[in-house]
Amino acid sequence: MPQKPAARLFVETGLAAGAAVALSPGQAHQLRAVLRLGPGDAVALFNARDGEWVARIETMARGACTVVPEQQTHAQEDESDLWLVFAPIKRARLDFMVEKATELGVSAFCPVITAHTNVERLNPDRLAAIAREAAEQSERLTLPEIRAVAPLSRLVADWPAERRLILCDESGTAPPAAAALAELPPGPRAVLVGPEGGFAESELDALRKLPFVCPVGLGPRVLRSDTAAIAGLAVVQSLGGDWDAVRRRRLQGRAAPIR
Amino acid sequence: MPQKPAARLFVETGLAAGAAVALSPGQAHQLRAVLRLGPGDAVALFNARDGEWVARIETMARGACTVVPEQQTHAQEDESDLWLVFAPIKRARLDFMVEKATELGVSAFCPVITAHTNVERLNPDRLAAIAREAAEQSERLTLPEIRAVAPLSRLVADWPAERRLILCDESGTAPPAAAALAELPPGPRAVLVGPEGGFAESELDALRKLPFVCPVGLGPRVLRSDTAAIAGLAVVQSLGGDWDAVRRRRLQGRAAPIR
Repeated sequence: MPQKPAARLFVETGLAAGAAVALSPGQAHQLRAVLRLGPGDAVALFNARDGEWVARIETMARGACTVVPEQQTHAQEDESDLWLVFAPIKRARLDFMVEKATELGVSAFCPVITAHTNVERLNPDRLAAIAREAAEQSERLTLPEIRAVAPLSRLVADWPAERRLILCDESGTAPPAAAALAELPPGPRAVLVGPEGGFAESELDALRKLPFVCPVGLGPRVLRSDTAAIAGLAVVQSLGGDWDAVRRRRLQGRAAPIR
Repeated sequence: MPQKPAARLFVETGLAAGAAVALSPGQAHQLRAVLRLGPGDAVALFNARDGEWVARIETMARGACTVVPEQQTHAQEDESDLWLVFAPIKRARLDFMVEKATELGVSAFCPVITAHTNVERLNPDRLAAIAREAAEQSERLTLPEIRAVAPLSRLVADWPAERRLILCDESGTAPPAAAALAELPPGPRAVLVGPEGGFAESELDALRKLPFVCPVGLGPRVLRSDTAAIAGLAVVQSLGGDWDAVRRRRLQGRAAPIR
């Protein structure tokens, strides 16, 4: 049985047997200084196009490392198609939310400005780095997309009609999430959470009139915005999302050499 | 209609109309220096015994504040009975997990030492402070209990048989959470998550043999320990937990003067 890779890394380059890949200085540092790896050690690579590969470290120097893919351990496959639409929140909570949402299978982050949003700027590079690390750690084969900030009104005006927008509605008038989700036909979904100040009444009224919006209640307590996002995503994945896939992927994974 | 309280605070003392309550120096600082409140302003109080009250600030000085309860706005009631059994993790993730779990209605935190636990110490006072703030913010009427750290083996040896222990099982062999939870009879529950290194195979084998343990799968991705806790709690509350109560409590809340 081949050695279990000590790290799992996303790379931009194509992956093919024998075709050496140069890692970034940050990745080289992680392997050399943090994980104490050297030539001959195994790592796993994915690039969101060519599946997952086990690769061997060929050369290692300060800030530079090349690895050579040996064998594909997973074919590329479609992954969870689930968007998270959210109002930017304070940095530590936003970082945490992006990490957790990536682990829960979010495919696109769609930041929106709402009436009560009080944080209007995002650092997309930082969010992309957090999402990449979470994708590596959670054994995804893809990275989520970080979209540009847009006003909520424009996002819903351009909304793809077949995608259900699941509105985490704290007003107390929405049906419990499990009951509302049980009524939904299959199809792509997005989860929408408001800012810390909640949605304006006028925003909720407008959202509820849209045919693709499905308001859901997340219980009797007041949830912070990041808590609502993570809880909403978990319930949506559990009820009609990709959590039914657990056996297939995992058992496949366990038979492969690197898991 | 009375003024909406600008803060919601937990206090240890009994609450009764007209009986002045001395706030802690930290609470006095929050009201005076952070929220800029003064005599005559309204705050909400709860003590986990006497329901929720709207109270009026009577005196305010540096580090000292007295408030007088005027009217009970919610009677005390039973809240979510759900334990979280978890292996201690690194501080920032633990703090987030305790905040989120409190918002999701955890009534007792049960830290356990498992085979792969690599953080063995907890600061119970810090966790209690985080839980108290999350309880204030999420409009709970109770605080969760922070139990002492115990070996997992001792916790399960002393387990109350009627409480189902929902094991977040990343091995890939557990049924999806929604399917497993649909089979469970009503009754009190606990969610169990392992440390970052996962459970040892021998621990999983022993847990699965216990009649009160219900293994559940949380999807095809590898979740961090704190993500598994929050996602598992959300799904358990959504399917047979207290999320069906959304309408009752919230509509009651909206009719009351302070919401």
